[in-house]
Amino acid sequence: MPTSPDELRILVEDSLEGLELWPHLHGQAESVRYSISVGGKRVRPVICLATAEAAGVAPRAALPAGCALELVHTFSLVHDDLPALDDDEERRGQPSTWKQYGEAVGILAGDALLAEAFRLATSYDTPYVARELAHATLGMIGGQYLDVTGTAPDAATLHTLKTGCLFSAAVGLGLWAAAIPSDEQGEWRAFGDELGLLFQIVDDILDGDGYVLVHGRDGARRLADEAAERARRRLLDIASDTSVLREIVDGLAVRTA
Amino acid sequence: MPTSPDELRILVEDSLEGLELWPHLHGQAESVRYSISVGGKRVRPVICLATAEAAGVAPRAALPAGCALELVHTFSLVHDDLPALDDDEERRGQPSTWKQYGEAVGILAGDALLAEAFRLATSYDTPYVARELAHATLGMIGGQYLDVTGTAPDAATLHTLKTGCLFSAAVGLGLWAAAIPSDEQGEWRAFGDELGLLFQIVDDILDGDGYVLVHGRDGARRLADEAAERARRRLLDIASDTSVLREIVDGLAVRTA
Repeated sequence: MPTSPDELRILVEDSLEGLELWPHLHGQAESVRYSISVGGKRVRPVICLATAEAAGVAPRAALPAGCALELVHTFSLVHDDLPALDDDEERRGQPSTWKQYGEAVGILAGDALLAEAFRLATSYDTPYVARELAHATLGMIGGQYLDVTGTAPDAATLHTLKTGCLFSAAVGLGLWAAAIPSDEQGEWRAFGDELGLLFQIVDDILDGDGYVLVHGRDGARRLADEAAERARRRLLDIASDTSVLREIVDGLAVRTA
Repeated sequence: MPTSPDELRILVEDSLEGLELWPHLHGQAESVRYSISVGGKRVRPVICLATAEAAGVAPRAALPAGCALELVHTFSLVHDDLPALDDDEERRGQPSTWKQYGEAVGILAGDALLAEAFRLATSYDTPYVARELAHATLGMIGGQYLDVTGTAPDAATLHTLKTGCLFSAAVGLGLWAAAIPSDEQGEWRAFGDELGLLFQIVDDILDGDGYVLVHGRDGARRLADEAAERARRRLLDIASDTSVLREIVDGLAVRTA
């Protein structure tokens, strides 16, 4: 029986909590640990591990990839919160990293999270996990730039970059961790793209912005349901037990936090 | 005949200038290009290419590795210059990146440089180049932390991390680009360590700080000459044509900028 999303989340949490940071980080490690511990739903690494298991390997095989992805996500939050960007003093009810450790250490914490992510991603025998992570990170930074400077050509471009890149990579990294060759990844990746869109629309419904402002609350709800339905249909095209991924789609569609 | 340091530098400059940045960076690419173009001596990539050629491959084979290293170095300067860290408005006579593009884009420029570095480093068939780059980057960030917070246990630890890590990686990445297995890297790496020390001492002589404050100008000069001599002796242990590396040592020992 495949591992449930909750079990996968526990695997990820344990792995993040026990993560051995690079010893030469010295005292910088504390702010890195703090940033990771402020936590979240770990949805990206859970998707990564579920994809890897559906693709034929033990979820543990995807732990370095999944944790690397979560560290990139955390890096982006830590730098987003800085005074020069969103100037957020809180993150999930706790002081944001820069507020807790000062701005200089906050900047370095983000840098260290990104470098630790690539340390994890390069622990595989092949460069594919790390290569895709680099591409996803660059897309996400491009999205940040469009957001910060208000120069996005449209909302879809912005969301695809800011959110979609890492969701797409969650599926992609799981496939690489399972050593699925690129010419067999198409259907999985089409699924990943729908998942990113679904996550973004529901996020906007919860925050009352983005898609809600353009399509209204009911319109956005309909778009979310359609994206979820497309994601479920994509899974039917994959000749594997994708029941956990389906469960993740169902959970993302109705999430309330 | 091996490629001279000046020819290697031109190879690196051309490669950096023609670097195709990730298209999804959008407008962020401009600040990344600006940061790279502010330039410098490109000493780390030149060492990387010279090492690769001495180890048996064409210097071009090490260009992605060497450029990745230079991008990590550039990332560190861009973030160092930020108001929350060194607050430098100028870098080599030009506005620092944050001064030119604002603080938010300056932070993102450093992030993008680091991610581009890993994109280049993961373009190899093996993960070794990117893995060593991640380790070196983490060490450098640890050094930055010790510097910013004034918590370094001693000057040697600080310099080994802030400067030594990337110099050591310059040699290491060249070896990986030349596919030298790790059990044949020992003598080369011992050379790289001396090179980092030499660079740091001469830097302090030029800036009148660090080693000069502890050992006086003559004392620091003597230490630099000793490090250069040890580096030259290390090269004698290597059964390859290391004449260009020797030339680089000689140049670093007497440099005046």
